[in-house]
Formats: sequence, structure tokens, C-alpha cells
Amino acid sequence: MGQGVHVQELPGMGKRYDIELGRSDQRISVVVRSGGVRDLYVFDDRSSEPAAVIELSDEEARKVGAVLSSTYFEG
Amino acid sequence: MGQGVHVQELPGMGKRYDIELGRSDQRISVVVRSGGVRDLYVFDDRSSEPAAVIELSDEEARKVGAVLSSTYFEG
Repeated sequence: MGQGVHVQELPGMGKRYDIELGRSDQRISVVVRSGGVRDLYVFDDRSSEPAAVIELSDEEARKVGAVLSSTYFEG
Repeated sequence: MGQGVHVQELPGMGKRYDIELGRSDQRISVVVRSGGVRDLYVFDDRSSEPAAVIELSDEEARKVGAVLSSTYFEG
């Protein structure tokens, strides 16, 4: 599953994941901070500015991740 | 894990998941279409218009989901 995901260490901060999407003008980047917080960046055109930036707690990120992975089950 | 996620059936289309975030002006909605495609909607203010809308294939959605869930391992 490594294809299409570029991982970069951010020393002292965490890891950055750039996920390539089918459309070249769209990209999702996630910064996983050492403390668990994730910053979700959504780019939807060729601009270098993200269209949306959302800070997710560990729990929130896992919820969104489960829904996207189709592993979310109603509790 | 059901707390904070509202699930709605979209007859003939799929399921819609609204994920509440800590900040009331931010929300993530995911429409999981019957065929597997996911539409990711990111709302980052009180506007009813999403700041970003991204269409993800099943594979792309699983990649993003794995990164967010911290279950992504470099292949």
C-alpha cells in the first residue's frame, strides 16, 4: 500500500504523509504530530494553499479514518 | 466509537457519515457510495458550503484512512 504515499520525517514534530490522488490537482496531506494530533490538509486545485485545514485529535482522526477505510461500525 | 458520528442511509446511493469535531465550526462528512467511491466533504466554518470536496476511489480512501488511523505502514 506504499504506492502513492510520500512520507517525510519532521524532526521534533512528527511525520508528514502526502497522499497522491487520481486527479493531479487534488492532494491530501496529513501531519501526524508526536503527541497524536493530526493536521489534515486538503488541496483541491493547483494552488499551494490548502482549501481546508482541520486539526483532529487522536480520537477524531481514528473516527474519520475508520469511516474512510469502511471499518466503522455504529457503536 | 459511535459517539460523534451520525449515519444516514441514502437510499439507492449509499451512506452518509457526519463526523462531529471538537470545534463546532468544523465538520467532516463522508458519503460512501454503493460502488465504493467516497466523497469527502470538509467544512471549516459555519457556512453550509464545504471548504473542500474530494472524490476518493476505494483504494485512495483506504490510504487516507490508514494514515489517519495510524495503521499505515510503508510498503
